[in-house]
Amino acid sequence: MLVGVVGGGQLGRMLALAGIPHGHRFRFLDPDPACPASAVGDVVCGAYDDPAALERFASGLDAATFEFENVPAATIDALSALVPTAPGSRSLGVAQDRIAEKQFFRSCGIRVQAFEAVSTEADLAAACGRVGTPAVLKSRRMGYDGKGQSVVRSVRDLADAWRAVGGVPCIYEAFVDFSCEVSMIAVRARDGDVRTWALSMNEHRGGILHRTVAPAPRLPAHVVEEADRAMRTAIEALGHVGVLAIEFFVTPDGLVANEMAPRVHNSAHWTIDGAVTSQFENHVRAVCDEPLGSTDLRGASGMVNLVGSMPDRADLLSVPGARLHDYGKSPRPGRKLGHVNVCAPDERVRDAQLRVLEELVARAAAPVRAR
Amino acid sequence: MLVGVVGGGQLGRMLALAGIPHGHRFRFLDPDPACPASAVGDVVCGAYDDPAALERFASGLDAATFEFENVPAATIDALSALVPTAPGSRSLGVAQDRIAEKQFFRSCGIRVQAFEAVSTEADLAAACGRVGTPAVLKSRRMGYDGKGQSVVRSVRDLADAWRAVGGVPCIYEAFVDFSCEVSMIAVRARDGDVRTWALSMNEHRGGILHRTVAPAPRLPAHVVEEADRAMRTAIEALGHVGVLAIEFFVTPDGLVANEMAPRVHNSAHWTIDGAVTSQFENHVRAVCDEPLGSTDLRGASGMVNLVGSMPDRADLLSVPGARLHDYGKSPRPGRKLGHVNVCAPDERVRDAQLRVLEELVARAAAPVRAR
Repeated sequence: MLVGVVGGGQLGRMLALAGIPHGHRFRFLDPDPACPASAVGDVVCGAYDDPAALERFASGLDAATFEFENVPAATIDALSALVPTAPGSRSLGVAQDRIAEKQFFRSCGIRVQAFEAVSTEADLAAACGRVGTPAVLKSRRMGYDGKGQSVVRSVRDLADAWRAVGGVPCIYEAFVDFSCEVSMIAVRARDGDVRTWALSMNEHRGGILHRTVAPAPRLPAHVVEEADRAMRTAIEALGHVGVLAIEFFVTPDGLVANEMAPRVHNSAHWTIDGAVTSQFENHVRAVCDEPLGSTDLRGASGMVNLVGSMPDRADLLSVPGARLHDYGKSPRPGRKLGHVNVCAPDERVRDAQLRVLEELVARAAAPVRAR
Repeated sequence: MLVGVVGGGQLGRMLALAGIPHGHRFRFLDPDPACPASAVGDVVCGAYDDPAALERFASGLDAATFEFENVPAATIDALSALVPTAPGSRSLGVAQDRIAEKQFFRSCGIRVQAFEAVSTEADLAAACGRVGTPAVLKSRRMGYDGKGQSVVRSVRDLADAWRAVGGVPCIYEAFVDFSCEVSMIAVRARDGDVRTWALSMNEHRGGILHRTVAPAPRLPAHVVEEADRAMRTAIEALGHVGVLAIEFFVTPDGLVANEMAPRVHNSAHWTIDGAVTSQFENHVRAVCDEPLGSTDLRGASGMVNLVGSMPDRADLLSVPGARLHDYGKSPRPGRKLGHVNVCAPDERVRDAQLRVLEELVARAAAPVRAR
């Protein structure tokens, strides 16, 4: 099959690396002809809302998908009219609007924190009165990796927060008192078959995912089951086809859903080396209407993101068991340049490998001292 | 790095699939613009002995290698003058000439069967007198997958055999009475670091590899050690950089070397899913002067080749643990179209998975009966 992917970033690149061994070929729609995915397929160069580029992109495709949820819904609707496209616009619509997302979770019986929709500065004051502080003000749309967010610690922060998010429609969310963040990743086929991977435990730094371990350690079985059940309810309710990710906060009262992504997700990059079938391969299988593959674990897995600057490559590659995934991007502060996976026989070995990798990452990030 | 590969077949394709996650990009020299590797890099279209095509191919490369041993030695010499190229022409020269290969094995203290060089029909009669029958007459150069070979069961076959090989310079080899065939695959880095993978056991059908299992079952430890020792002696003697494969016959007297390949090899395709680092990735690491990765096993591995016709894809993908590698080629009798790997917790599970896969392969190969 010729598979089209809207977006040619690292997620598109890893989808192609997983799908090419199945005999598929890939084409990407991206404004940048030298995007990371250009190493593994043709790039139709154009804006995501350019109808002529979209037509060139769609011509001759057997199936299509997208690699990020901020693609215009109109683009996916137009694409769906030309070629079988998954996930559908329902999943995309819910994920693009933080209010719709929270309401969707509630409709599935999944707990969310207190929140209010905010369209004006007066709304914000009212929301703060009802929800209280501390809280976070986030743009309803187009936010990722901590962008478009502002923390409200007291009513005195409201004016600054409103300016910081640029006065766009927002969501005002109560802070959640959580012990850790986990994510559940699943894939659903066109025939309704659903598979979940082991629950992942995530650590963020500066609003960007720093590291993930799987299976999530030191969690009672009922929490893992709760995440699995919530995911299965949500993915069915959406009629989703492909990979879906839901991030949860772990609280003393159980899980609180934070957000979802209707696509392959950074917190499941470990599945490339740590699961029998990776999230990328199973997403391609679902999009191409192939049977899903086993999501069984291959060991105790971990992932460290390479953000902003690349550690020394020879050092990284010399860490026993380290699996490098370099996206081929030029370094820039806050930019995800790659990740390193480990998959070890047990948690102790995995944690030792991760410590070495995190040390290398920290060294690359540290400014060079004057002597 | 921009890595050049002479040849754009499935081996080049799998080299790129392993090297792109390290941030490398790939370019191929191949007469066919739609070759299997065209899905994962640019193709410079040209004959392997076309100096203009070679110059276009070499321009801007950071490192180069080849995916098959029948590339003209002059091409590799010319390429080496322009860009760091591995393996070197010494490995290529030995592998291209069956007489030089046998003499090389002997010089390393590695046992080979009785053989004679044959340049004329009179040589053939003399060789037959000294070596005896049964034997095989093979062209000295450009042979693979059983092509350019003829079996000599008695002196009466000599004239037919000479015609069958086309009267080119040949090697006359005594039959070996062997219980099975194994192959040892290793990689050597520029700094001399050598890693070997678990010994593979191979079954051929019609002169083409049918299946491999690793580690090779039911072999005494001293045979495995003998193969490892022979490989280490040979790879050092060649000063080889990259992956080297040696096929051995297992006989009551120990191992007899059959042939070598100075490249990634079909009998180690299982390493993609069954080893921490695959032969393809370690070959790229060696060529790009990166530290080698662990060759440790991830379980009991097996591989079945898909030759001539493709089994039903959904059936293949539904076999638990099956890992499909489809080269994207159009079917043709005797053509390697792909392979399927399995990597199981133990041999019993592995063998059960292989049996299902072999049944699917046999069904695809069987002619449809008239009703």
